[in-house]
Amino acid sequence: MSETENSNSVGAVTPQRVQFKAPIQLKSGAVLPEFELVFETYGELNAARSNAVLVCHALAGSHHVAGWYAGDPDNIGWWDNLVGPGKPLDTNRFFVVGVNNLGGCYGSTGPVTLNPASGKPWGADFPVITVEDWVAAQARLADHLGIDVWAAVLGGSLGGMQALEWTLQYPERIRHALVIASTPKLTAQNIAFNEVARQAILTDPEFHAGHYYEHRAVPRRGLRLARMVGHITYLSDNQMDEKFGRRLRDGKRQFSYEVDFEVESYLRYQGDKFARYFDANTYLLITKALDYFDPALEYGGDLKAALARAQANFLVASFDTDWRFPPQRSRELVHALLCNRRNVTYAEIACTAGHDSFLLDDAHYHALMRAYLGNIKL
Amino acid sequence: MSETENSNSVGAVTPQRVQFKAPIQLKSGAVLPEFELVFETYGELNAARSNAVLVCHALAGSHHVAGWYAGDPDNIGWWDNLVGPGKPLDTNRFFVVGVNNLGGCYGSTGPVTLNPASGKPWGADFPVITVEDWVAAQARLADHLGIDVWAAVLGGSLGGMQALEWTLQYPERIRHALVIASTPKLTAQNIAFNEVARQAILTDPEFHAGHYYEHRAVPRRGLRLARMVGHITYLSDNQMDEKFGRRLRDGKRQFSYEVDFEVESYLRYQGDKFARYFDANTYLLITKALDYFDPALEYGGDLKAALARAQANFLVASFDTDWRFPPQRSRELVHALLCNRRNVTYAEIACTAGHDSFLLDDAHYHALMRAYLGNIKL
Repeated sequence: MSETENSNSVGAVTPQRVQFKAPIQLKSGAVLPEFELVFETYGELNAARSNAVLVCHALAGSHHVAGWYAGDPDNIGWWDNLVGPGKPLDTNRFFVVGVNNLGGCYGSTGPVTLNPASGKPWGADFPVITVEDWVAAQARLADHLGIDVWAAVLGGSLGGMQALEWTLQYPERIRHALVIASTPKLTAQNIAFNEVARQAILTDPEFHAGHYYEHRAVPRRGLRLARMVGHITYLSDNQMDEKFGRRLRDGKRQFSYEVDFEVESYLRYQGDKFARYFDANTYLLITKALDYFDPALEYGGDLKAALARAQANFLVASFDTDWRFPPQRSRELVHALLCNRRNVTYAEIACTAGHDSFLLDDAHYHALMRAYLGNIKL
Repeated sequence: MSETENSNSVGAVTPQRVQFKAPIQLKSGAVLPEFELVFETYGELNAARSNAVLVCHALAGSHHVAGWYAGDPDNIGWWDNLVGPGKPLDTNRFFVVGVNNLGGCYGSTGPVTLNPASGKPWGADFPVITVEDWVAAQARLADHLGIDVWAAVLGGSLGGMQALEWTLQYPERIRHALVIASTPKLTAQNIAFNEVARQAILTDPEFHAGHYYEHRAVPRRGLRLARMVGHITYLSDNQMDEKFGRRLRDGKRQFSYEVDFEVESYLRYQGDKFARYFDANTYLLITKALDYFDPALEYGGDLKAALARAQANFLVASFDTDWRFPPQRSRELVHALLCNRRNVTYAEIACTAGHDSFLLDDAHYHALMRAYLGNIKL
């Protein structure tokens, strides 16, 4: 069954855009004089405006959360298995909003868009963005859509950090935060992997100090390597062994540096594909937002103190094979929330797929999401 | 106390070299018409020639296992904490041999040495080498030194694979194999990390298809990235957090792609340092040897059957925080050896340092090595 025949798809969708003329002050100290966000919505906002849900994207995601495009029916939203009529995030009940974050490369203001001051793409001059900045920009979008309070904000990985940040920056504007496969802060190892990815891009001769657009160049080699190393951390060791093991693509060793093992072929393919469509400056910027996220920083590392202002109810979920943001990171978050007597549901889900499990339609995971979201009062 | 004042150092040492004029047939099918090996020895070969121990190096190691050079006293052997008079591998008792493997970049025949057919460096024309080939070349060295039987062959990581391979290729020439922090084969994830490292080198524009010497170029960017990603896998997550955590080098966020976190500074330093002295073609070749090692391959994956011909006694040791070759990999080896009723000592050592623990002088680990090696009859 193709997606266009899928009765529980939100169907053909159309991105919208909104321009914000008021400047936005960023955490870095920089100010963007104006900005645009690209977004999509699914379902209908009810009269009480009480059924709005914001879906936040992770590193490679976008505003295109569900459905497909009339002119491009194979371009299906990245969380389409979760979002639609009758699906766990049920668009018959909820008004769902997906947004491409500030600094992204899918149409919102970012390194690839024009810097009004120069008339050229921002490139490396685009300011470094934080999770806090994203949430501040998303709040502008909420204002624009007439949404005072989100019924829920949810996301996996970096998306989960945004959901958590909503509860801290706008505690009165979010009723439920769903923080999936996420962490209250990156470890040194997490940062180290991001740094390898950044160095691959920054040292690519085609990077031209971030102004590659003007040189009609693309730092594809660096972006490809960044994706390859990232991809390893998204999958579990066991899943990689199940999926590829030591299988040789052509049944015998090549004794050269051509593809020997299937896992090599897979990684090269993923790297090549990603490097064709993703923007290198956006990649740098998003990894930096990940590294910087640490709500406890201003509280001397005391996460409990940092979360004291949160008022939302929480669903926190982790996956047992996720070694990027393992269950222990979620437990730290849950513990700090419980210390604040917040209402928390927590689940550690057995799923072989590692960090990327949050994107899959694992039965236990989706049953949990369906149960939690179904219980939200409108 | 400097190394030159260290009474239990083997002292100033001098590398030796030996040329083998008879061709060597490699696993790839290629034949090297002749080759040289660079090696060092410590201690004295006894009259019965029964006290010889071969130390095999891992990815970045060399023949310089212990001691220092008269003209370069800071250049201390990579396993100097283990090897010396009164040390766990006691040079008062043993005649210890370190050798730079075929294809290496410390003086043995390899990509950086001259191809007699062309008079130019071998570069990318140097054949892909396997662990089996290394051991076959080491056997020539043993012949040259008049060593019929090694009292022991030992190594960590890739060095442990060579010790294991000795028991299979020359079962009658090795009495004890010490296989430390190693594995009978790489997993898909292990191969994936090696592939990222290789792709970083292969796609560096300065690589020139492996003939960078002729272009007076060095693929430093690629080699640097390869080392950075490798380095992450050598350390444990916990140790990285203890060592660096989220500490900012300058106490505040830079909001740029300069160094923010200390772990970034450390990784860049390690990458830069390595790229200054290591050869990129050798790096490629060694990662391939790692990937290919799989003694069970010719036995339909049956490790027990593959090890049936081993006659040596074994010490197998793993480190609990090693996520590159975790204890489970050593347990598989131990299990297969026990199925063959081999004499096996096995230890899982608690050490925070991850894979690199095998290079450290952890008290428990060194006590184990001292006890095992001390019990070897000469």
